[in-house]
Amino acid sequence: MSATELPAMQRVSVLTSDLRLTVEERPVPVPEAGDVVVQVRSVGVCGSDIHYFEHGRIADFVVEAPLVLGHEASGEVVAVGAGVHGLRVGDRVAMEPGVPCGSCDQCRHGRYNLCPDVRFFATPPIDGAFAEYVALPAAVAHKVPDELSFDAAALLEPLSVGVWACEKGGVRLGSRVLITGAGPVGVMAALVARANGATQITLSDVNPDRLARAEELGFATIDSRSASVADLVEADVLLECSGAPSAIDAGIRAVAPAGTVVLVGMSPSGTVELPVGVIQGREIWLTGTFRYAHTYPAAIALAASGAVDLDGLVSKTFTLDEVEQALTYSRQDPAAMKIMVHPS
Amino acid sequence: MSATELPAMQRVSVLTSDLRLTVEERPVPVPEAGDVVVQVRSVGVCGSDIHYFEHGRIADFVVEAPLVLGHEASGEVVAVGAGVHGLRVGDRVAMEPGVPCGSCDQCRHGRYNLCPDVRFFATPPIDGAFAEYVALPAAVAHKVPDELSFDAAALLEPLSVGVWACEKGGVRLGSRVLITGAGPVGVMAALVARANGATQITLSDVNPDRLARAEELGFATIDSRSASVADLVEADVLLECSGAPSAIDAGIRAVAPAGTVVLVGMSPSGTVELPVGVIQGREIWLTGTFRYAHTYPAAIALAASGAVDLDGLVSKTFTLDEVEQALTYSRQDPAAMKIMVHPS
Amino acid sequence: MSATELPAMQRVSVLTSDLRLTVEERPVPVPEAGDVVVQVRSVGVCGSDIHYFEHGRIADFVVEAPLVLGHEASGEVVAVGAGVHGLRVGDRVAMEPGVPCGSCDQCRHGRYNLCPDVRFFATPPIDGAFAEYVALPAAVAHKVPDELSFDAAALLEPLSVGVWACEKGGVRLGSRVLITGAGPVGVMAALVARANGATQITLSDVNPDRLARAEELGFATIDSRSASVADLVEADVLLECSGAPSAIDAGIRAVAPAGTVVLVGMSPSGTVELPVGVIQGREIWLTGTFRYAHTYPAAIALAASGAVDLDGLVSKTFTLDEVEQALTYSRQDPAAMKIMVHPS
Amino acid sequence: MSATELPAMQRVSVLTSDLRLTVEERPVPVPEAGDVVVQVRSVGVCGSDIHYFEHGRIADFVVEAPLVLGHEASGEVVAVGAGVHGLRVGDRVAMEPGVPCGSCDQCRHGRYNLCPDVRFFATPPIDGAFAEYVALPAAVAHKVPDELSFDAAALLEPLSVGVWACEKGGVRLGSRVLITGAGPVGVMAALVARANGATQITLSDVNPDRLARAEELGFATIDSRSASVADLVEADVLLECSGAPSAIDAGIRAVAPAGTVVLVGMSPSGTVELPVGVIQGREIWLTGTFRYAHTYPAAIALAASGAVDLDGLVSKTFTLDEVEQALTYSRQDPAAMKIMVHPS
Repeated sequence: MSATELPAMQRVSVLTSDLRLTVEERPVPVPEAGDVVVQVRSVGVCGSDIHYFEHGRIADFVVEAPLVLGHEASGEVVAVGAGVHGLRVGDRVAMEPGVPCGSCDQCRHGRYNLCPDVRFFATPPIDGAFAEYVALPAAVAHKVPDELSFDAAALLEPLSVGVWACEKGGVRLGSRVLITGAGPVGVMAALVARANGATQITLSDVNPDRLARAEELGFATIDSRSASVADLVEADVLLECSGAPSAIDAGIRAVAPAGTVVLVGMSPSGTVELPVGVIQGREIWLTGTFRYAHTYPAAIALAASGAVDLDGLVSKTFTLDEVEQALTYSRQDPAAMKIMVHPS
Repeated sequence: MSATELPAMQRVSVLTSDLRLTVEERPVPVPEAGDVVVQVRSVGVCGSDIHYFEHGRIADFVVEAPLVLGHEASGEVVAVGAGVHGLRVGDRVAMEPGVPCGSCDQCRHGRYNLCPDVRFFATPPIDGAFAEYVALPAAVAHKVPDELSFDAAALLEPLSVGVWACEKGGVRLGSRVLITGAGPVGVMAALVARANGATQITLSDVNPDRLARAEELGFATIDSRSASVADLVEADVLLECSGAPSAIDAGIRAVAPAGTVVLVGMSPSGTVELPVGVIQGREIWLTGTFRYAHTYPAAIALAASGAVDLDGLVSKTFTLDEVEQALTYSRQDPAAMKIMVHPS
Repeated sequence: MSATELPAMQRVSVLTSDLRLTVEERPVPVPEAGDVVVQVRSVGVCGSDIHYFEHGRIADFVVEAPLVLGHEASGEVVAVGAGVHGLRVGDRVAMEPGVPCGSCDQCRHGRYNLCPDVRFFATPPIDGAFAEYVALPAAVAHKVPDELSFDAAALLEPLSVGVWACEKGGVRLGSRVLITGAGPVGVMAALVARANGATQITLSDVNPDRLARAEELGFATIDSRSASVADLVEADVLLECSGAPSAIDAGIRAVAPAGTVVLVGMSPSGTVELPVGVIQGREIWLTGTFRYAHTYPAAIALAASGAVDLDGLVSKTFTLDEVEQALTYSRQDPAAMKIMVHPS
Repeated sequence: MSATELPAMQRVSVLTSDLRLTVEERPVPVPEAGDVVVQVRSVGVCGSDIHYFEHGRIADFVVEAPLVLGHEASGEVVAVGAGVHGLRVGDRVAMEPGVPCGSCDQCRHGRYNLCPDVRFFATPPIDGAFAEYVALPAAVAHKVPDELSFDAAALLEPLSVGVWACEKGGVRLGSRVLITGAGPVGVMAALVARANGATQITLSDVNPDRLARAEELGFATIDSRSASVADLVEADVLLECSGAPSAIDAGIRAVAPAGTVVLVGMSPSGTVELPVGVIQGREIWLTGTFRYAHTYPAAIALAASGAVDLDGLVSKTFTLDEVEQALTYSRQDPAAMKIMVHPS
């Protein structure tokens, strides 16, 4: 093991099982073989963090013991376990938050995001990254070039969601893409679609501030409060990023024959009434995304190329003591894009 | 033009706009350039024929003028138009019932089944094949070998539905296939899945006679009145052939991660509540079929090889004067497979 | 038919069977049903034009009668035949040079570039576009927006070669692309690869001027006279644009496991010794391109977006009387990119 | 660990570095965590075993220390290491001979056959299965049903080669398949192609005994000494199983536009002159196979279904003391299919 001089204890933001946020002292981890310890520099707030804070659960994942939230994270390597190659103390890394088992049928087929035994940051009972230090396997600590800020490196995680959505949707040169939902995920998906060569990209939303920001970024927009997307565009690919049943239905009706629908946003109820007659009559392909796989190299290259300005998506930054403010900030600014926590 | 001596007039079964079936005298067609005239020998009854007879419409297709039903048809070439190569008087043919425009965007991309201007037998206002003679382009009159009966040649049309479903579903060697709905389409799909190398094929239905027949054909079955398919099988591919919302929901829940769902059966309402959480969490691909494309060569080879016994699926045969009995026969025998009409 | 007042006769550059170039008077065509007549404004010189001029043949296509060369062409619609929709006199169009039959097996499957009966500009015995006026089906006359110059519209044809190469190669976000041959086709392919999201693009060539231009366009380069590409890069996709056996061999050795090789350049002999052991050991996929299909909409959108600067690739322009100079210009300037002829 | 009473020592057939075969006493392995020990019951002789015996090397793999040959193996589990689930003493298993690393880029993408660190039976320096007992990870010991003999279970390995070839070739319902080379691999590929729904399967060879056997199995054949395959068949898929340059060239010329070529057989020189003009003009896809991945479940189901009679392919059986006779048997009977060694 090689390491800088590390303190024994660190500060960690913890969500208790009665859904209060407190800062605790915990030991700084020591790296096991194959692992690195990272000093966390930036963590993005995701809707799932807010949902755990407000509801204590997502589907079957329940906060039953104190949980550290935060899974969009970057930092600096401060200790390296035995057998680690390719990473050294001082390297700046983006942390891919899921560690798959590597030996199940899904892993063996290359679909590690579907691994039933994945250990994923901030998904009970696995702790996340609202902490000064975390340990993780070197294989999921992706070195990033100097031109990426720590905020940008953290935001490679939601960017990966967009990369995966575009890959599932087969977005390519000349694609006409409709994105329903202009929040952070929708905007990330739009930026990736543009980098994939899509030549018609339209975002729809009900929030005028979000639509205004999408327009600033150069995208066409539809205010879905006053217009139906299917009346205004025909798309080869729908990237559904809202989870709203009405947006899903309207979006599917805008898809051309042989087109593709990717459900990225999650619908609270788990079931949605879909226009299956349209899907059949046009032989549309529909799928959904669950996290992402193999996306970090492309996401890093994309951000490093300057094609996607991740820093420009940061709306507000908080400290580790202010995690509660970070998790509730979107109530006062519903059009906010990314809220960051800087733990160190 | 080359032809046998043809009569001037023929008998045709007509569905009037007030939904009565009568037999009329009409002129025997004369082949235009590129067309052949076929003496119709066998026509299978499809659920869509029954639906037009009972309701006068399917979706936006309304019987407003007298309509000839029947689109699963075979017969013998009796006249050949100018410029036809590869077909001669006396050839036995299966008639592919749709004639695409050939120049629209869908046709140019090879998806001729999605051609918005397709002329399809027995779809208002295009007449079908419950007639002694029909004319059609030589390109859609597929010559069949002598080992296929006229009934079998007619049934290449529903077999094509099964071929297309399996192709969309990516059924291949080792696939585990679940088929919800053990009617004619479900059984055809099962036979094709077996020919594609599927090694686990299960049919579910609520009708015990249909389940018994499926078992006779060597397939595993589930009585979905008393058991949930998702409790009993895990499938790589779901071929949904019932159109029943409960079967669709249950079937999707039986599909493995990264599996495929093909909606073949039509749901009357056009919308169905789907478990999108399951689709997303397992990254399932879902699509539907609209007719079929490029299937006849494989269907002919499959039937000719003996791998699929189409004659064995014929439950009952009627004459042109008995079309009404043919269209209502399934009321008295809900487990009947294929009802045929022999017009000549 | 609607038309501006057209002259009766036009001037046309003709390659005689004894391989001399002359300018002839010929009648201005009158549009048949479905056709448009276009006043030709710009035509790019292709290597195949030069090859016909120098050798009188390419493979089995022999110049046996006077032939009009030129197939990278744009112009203005001056007459419209019966039944044409979507094009009007005055529209500026890029001419897709091949007219497929529309009814063969390849056409029906959407692979119209493989149609054995295609009629292709400047391929014996079909005349090309070194003429003041040409007639062609409206379906292959693609309307271009005002921001594209006539030169750029003509160069959508070689750009289509690059679009097709990238599509065959599956170039996408994050792809590492090696392009052997930095001539016009290689540069076009590189520009398209960048628009497809490729994040590592390297061109190799033996001509330092070509390499310098590729670098000006922002691409990495390898001088293959002094270095082996396989020593310097690992590529997911090889787009082979030179046709040189040594470049093909070296390029394949630079391809990563499960990567893709697309042979775009033509090898004079028709056979090349390939490292099949490498192809097998890495399970590389190799294919070749023959023209392109369905590329014009994406090519137009790409050029119109400004992502590809086609005008910047024009090295020199000639008149109809100077076609011989145009066809021989590359002898004096081997690094020249596109030579254009302006017939009108 | 659970185990039957095992002997301390076992007999093993060893190829020395001076290429002599001897039988040695070695310790019976003790299973490590995750491993099973298998009493070897049947091992097929592969061309690679013969090649190592005759030449001491294949490409860069050199026999520098004593090596146990044999990698097509089956047997019975006699000891189970800690943490093994799903296998018990007494289970009959087919042994997948390669153990990938599980963590490299290829493994993470599901392409474990391309793992650069794979440990593969009988590939220097990894010992194979011409032994009474072997230890291997439980994950690659595939339980087989009772209806499969030990010979058949061993032959799932070459059957996997055929399964993988057909998968790479996209063989499916209606495919026209040409197989050049009617040896064991070619015949396996043909049997799998039939199970995949191929409706035209032709094998070519220069050996009349092999052709006769292929015909007995119901396949069409071409004697390539007297006829050119391209003159006689058009194929959608070529499975090249001979490695002979002339067969590769002729086979490619028989492939239809947009068809697929899979190079399965290995060419000694590593390079072959290919008709790239044909590949380009028809936009053929060509690849090669390196072993296989994820094939055992399908291969087991296929053999268990009775669709492929593996026992019928066994020509001759030898004991562990007769390995040299086994490896040289094909000299006296060039048409022999599979030679088996029964070590126990």
